[in-house]
Amino acid sequence: MSKEFRTIALIGKYRSPEIADSLQRLAAFLRERGVQVLVEQMTATSAGVRDWEAAPYEAIGAEADAAIIIGGDGTLLDAARRLAEFQVPLVGVNQGRLGFMTDIAHRDMLTAIDQLLDGRFTREDRFLLEAEVQRGGERLFRTRALNDVVLNKGDLGRMIEIEVKIDGEFLFVLRADGMIVATPTGSTAYALSANGPILHPKVSGIAVVPLCPHALSNRAITISDKSRIELTLVLPYDARVHFDGQERVEARGGDSVHIFRSEHVATLLHPPGYSYFAMLREKLHWSATPKH
Amino acid sequence: MSKEFRTIALIGKYRSPEIADSLQRLAAFLRERGVQVLVEQMTATSAGVRDWEAAPYEAIGAEADAAIIIGGDGTLLDAARRLAEFQVPLVGVNQGRLGFMTDIAHRDMLTAIDQLLDGRFTREDRFLLEAEVQRGGERLFRTRALNDVVLNKGDLGRMIEIEVKIDGEFLFVLRADGMIVATPTGSTAYALSANGPILHPKVSGIAVVPLCPHALSNRAITISDKSRIELTLVLPYDARVHFDGQERVEARGGDSVHIFRSEHVATLLHPPGYSYFAMLREKLHWSATPKH
Amino acid sequence: MSKEFRTIALIGKYRSPEIADSLQRLAAFLRERGVQVLVEQMTATSAGVRDWEAAPYEAIGAEADAAIIIGGDGTLLDAARRLAEFQVPLVGVNQGRLGFMTDIAHRDMLTAIDQLLDGRFTREDRFLLEAEVQRGGERLFRTRALNDVVLNKGDLGRMIEIEVKIDGEFLFVLRADGMIVATPTGSTAYALSANGPILHPKVSGIAVVPLCPHALSNRAITISDKSRIELTLVLPYDARVHFDGQERVEARGGDSVHIFRSEHVATLLHPPGYSYFAMLREKLHWSATPKH
Amino acid sequence: MSKEFRTIALIGKYRSPEIADSLQRLAAFLRERGVQVLVEQMTATSAGVRDWEAAPYEAIGAEADAAIIIGGDGTLLDAARRLAEFQVPLVGVNQGRLGFMTDIAHRDMLTAIDQLLDGRFTREDRFLLEAEVQRGGERLFRTRALNDVVLNKGDLGRMIEIEVKIDGEFLFVLRADGMIVATPTGSTAYALSANGPILHPKVSGIAVVPLCPHALSNRAITISDKSRIELTLVLPYDARVHFDGQERVEARGGDSVHIFRSEHVATLLHPPGYSYFAMLREKLHWSATPKH
Repeated sequence: MSKEFRTIALIGKYRSPEIADSLQRLAAFLRERGVQVLVEQMTATSAGVRDWEAAPYEAIGAEADAAIIIGGDGTLLDAARRLAEFQVPLVGVNQGRLGFMTDIAHRDMLTAIDQLLDGRFTREDRFLLEAEVQRGGERLFRTRALNDVVLNKGDLGRMIEIEVKIDGEFLFVLRADGMIVATPTGSTAYALSANGPILHPKVSGIAVVPLCPHALSNRAITISDKSRIELTLVLPYDARVHFDGQERVEARGGDSVHIFRSEHVATLLHPPGYSYFAMLREKLHWSATPKH
Repeated sequence: MSKEFRTIALIGKYRSPEIADSLQRLAAFLRERGVQVLVEQMTATSAGVRDWEAAPYEAIGAEADAAIIIGGDGTLLDAARRLAEFQVPLVGVNQGRLGFMTDIAHRDMLTAIDQLLDGRFTREDRFLLEAEVQRGGERLFRTRALNDVVLNKGDLGRMIEIEVKIDGEFLFVLRADGMIVATPTGSTAYALSANGPILHPKVSGIAVVPLCPHALSNRAITISDKSRIELTLVLPYDARVHFDGQERVEARGGDSVHIFRSEHVATLLHPPGYSYFAMLREKLHWSATPKH
Repeated sequence: MSKEFRTIALIGKYRSPEIADSLQRLAAFLRERGVQVLVEQMTATSAGVRDWEAAPYEAIGAEADAAIIIGGDGTLLDAARRLAEFQVPLVGVNQGRLGFMTDIAHRDMLTAIDQLLDGRFTREDRFLLEAEVQRGGERLFRTRALNDVVLNKGDLGRMIEIEVKIDGEFLFVLRADGMIVATPTGSTAYALSANGPILHPKVSGIAVVPLCPHALSNRAITISDKSRIELTLVLPYDARVHFDGQERVEARGGDSVHIFRSEHVATLLHPPGYSYFAMLREKLHWSATPKH
Repeated sequence: MSKEFRTIALIGKYRSPEIADSLQRLAAFLRERGVQVLVEQMTATSAGVRDWEAAPYEAIGAEADAAIIIGGDGTLLDAARRLAEFQVPLVGVNQGRLGFMTDIAHRDMLTAIDQLLDGRFTREDRFLLEAEVQRGGERLFRTRALNDVVLNKGDLGRMIEIEVKIDGEFLFVLRADGMIVATPTGSTAYALSANGPILHPKVSGIAVVPLCPHALSNRAITISDKSRIELTLVLPYDARVHFDGQERVEARGGDSVHIFRSEHVATLLHPPGYSYFAMLREKLHWSATPKH
């Protein structure tokens, strides 16, 4: 029996009954190893799994020593945001193609979890962002993001203007399709499509990446993760604010989004042999050697 | 009399007699305020200034409480590299257009130095890189860089191949015109022309930026400033290694360049009102507000 | 009296009463020079101008020898699309900052029109795109564009997938925020913000520019203006199709957009001394000489 | 016997004895089909092949109805430049990985040539550039290029300044590592590494691509292939001018490079089923369908 992992939660991809089999096999394997199993409530329902104790996120947060995510990076993002304040480490098992964070292939699932229970894993902290949308100085919405907060042009589909402040200092008014504020974790997600920088998870920085900026000289800038970013939508534009591509708020001219490093981190547990650079090579299709 | 700055060195742009007048005015002003003045030896010679004590860099390092650079960013880079181990803070006075680091305009020179002597300034540390070129495992050359170390294609002018390791782990073999390894300070210099990321000086990262890479998916990557970078030139290519664009070594296939954060920093003293973001706006021609 | 320009239409920025004064001065000046003046109907109404013959676009198309646009590039785009089939040459007078096409400054207005009437101008043809949106093989919508046709992610704000065919040949399925298909005229507009190529108006090419593509290797490609482009929105995505940023159609998965060079061109009349490159320098903030 | 191809020349990669076997097999196959075979002189020597008539390029130009290139794109570039004025169509057989122009795989060699002799092929013209380097107004050097003319920083390795004129009109003084002037053929070669545009061979344009420009707003621009480009190296810089990466001239401050479309074209013969877009997908690693 693992001393470190007495209780493990299983969290599956949203509305994906196809994970039921993996879930059952994992749960059975864990019980065999003496681990108490919790199945996240919505996962249990949508996968039609009734043999294990179903638990809401709060109970998982309170009781689980780790959560195994069965799905893709999106599933892990969602779990990370919900469990951020509970410090439950996350293990990602991918059902399809490997993700940046769901780095255990389906076929290696039991081996990797076996190693985990034996204490053979590496632990890595990824910081989250806190984001608050304000209207007239009042909080309209508050949430967290592990990847990014994106302020994007709204329904009219025309460029918007955003006043950008860093630590209270005016930087500029950006004219663009929008702005992405990304963690190192998010730097290889949407921000990369917008020509943002790739930041290794150990870099204590936040990337501020303009989306299709009007001025050719506008570039992404990476600032310290101790800095606070304030994005104010200029009148009369409307926009949408997306958090990890999972939650969304409609913003009006004058609304502002305040973004700063969360006190919480998402802890990822990686299997032996995990390598961030190998993952980059794989996901970004970098050849190990050039093709002439 | 300033307690903090009893001795101040003046360092001028290399072989630039036109700085003589600024130098004399500064020196006279400092003496009037009770500060002992040292004029860097080569500066004194090339500017034809004989009224003040001339001193080599070693003496400046040992005795000066600050050094005022009269020239451009290149002059400051040179001084920073030479004085790195002595912890002499640097003040940059630009003779022409403002630089990223030589942020005091010629016309504001005496006012800014006056404020400095009164203790009105901000202090900012910028880290340097240590770089060692090895051949056959032996040290061929070692130096420091405040901006960047650039491995560039050599005399034949054809793409080269570079094996890249980070902290001993193989990343890939890059096929490109070269590779730039830049500090946050250097991120707004040459690396920016190669589409590298802009890193705020407070970001503890090192940018690894491919120069015209053959593969479209290759991008710059920013790693922790605790990481060590090893670039090995693949046979049979030849290349040049540039340090801050000031020193240069010819490299052959098999040679490697080891780059890591120096234990030394360059300390910059900025005048009141200095703003990194204002400097970015000015130097990168970012409009404060968009032009429609 | 000008033989070439017996009748000239005046077309003002949409809902912009502030152009009334310019319009009146221009009309009076033209009458003085013996030219018959038509004022576009909606312009006359919104500017409150009743002293001149108001005419709908059809009448302008049938009767005018030229149309003077008073507004910005958006106003000229709109007029060019409406008048495309009538071969009425366009002259652009900008009320604010110079546009790429509205290249006569307000203060030079009368001088430039005077030169025009004297035959002192250069004539330049800019091709338009025909665009047809099809659903289930049937035409849903058809229009023209002088700048660009943009297929953009829809209401959900998530990346979409677009199957791209050129001249009937499958190119790839793009995963991106969208796709811009731009003329040389449009290459300096929105497409440029998406890192598209700048195409001189004399280049017979169409730029196909991915918007924030998921794959790093995806780049814009410029094809012959004799080629036909077919973009099919993959199920289950929804998207919006924008034409010159002025008309918009909602598209569903399975809908396709067919784009090809129109048989019509927009003819621009430029004042003496007009230079495309000078315009580029001015609009893109290219320095004539580098700043060190 | 083919009526169109009575005499075919074989041209092999420079100093590459390993092509001898392919060369012998091709020659024997051609003779069997009644075609007269010429082996390019240097190819014959370096491959140690003495069984066939060796011929210099002039004789190939005068007598051959086609030339088969055995090697890579570099070999084809070289042959295209040497044979440009003789209108000898080129067929490219690649010994290793497929090239953009050497589009027949080694294993398909005999089948493709068989089809060629039967008249089953497509013909495609690619234009070349004429380039003349002038010093003091006098011709210093003149040559042709199928891919590109590159003006690159010289021995000192520092940015250079280049005055750019298009059709005699001053565009700007560029501060950069250099400038690439590329044909559509060359647009997928070196220019692409410098973020240049991809131009389909049917686009009548020339790409003018800055190499690591100092100013962030500088971008590549594509101009008509009827335009003449003049690049003048500003004093005191030195530079190198490269032609297809195969010839090189040292340039001094004040020297100018004049570039314009050649009256000659290189005619490529492609095997049945050849597709430019398929080649792009293959060479640029574009997925036919996105990987999620």
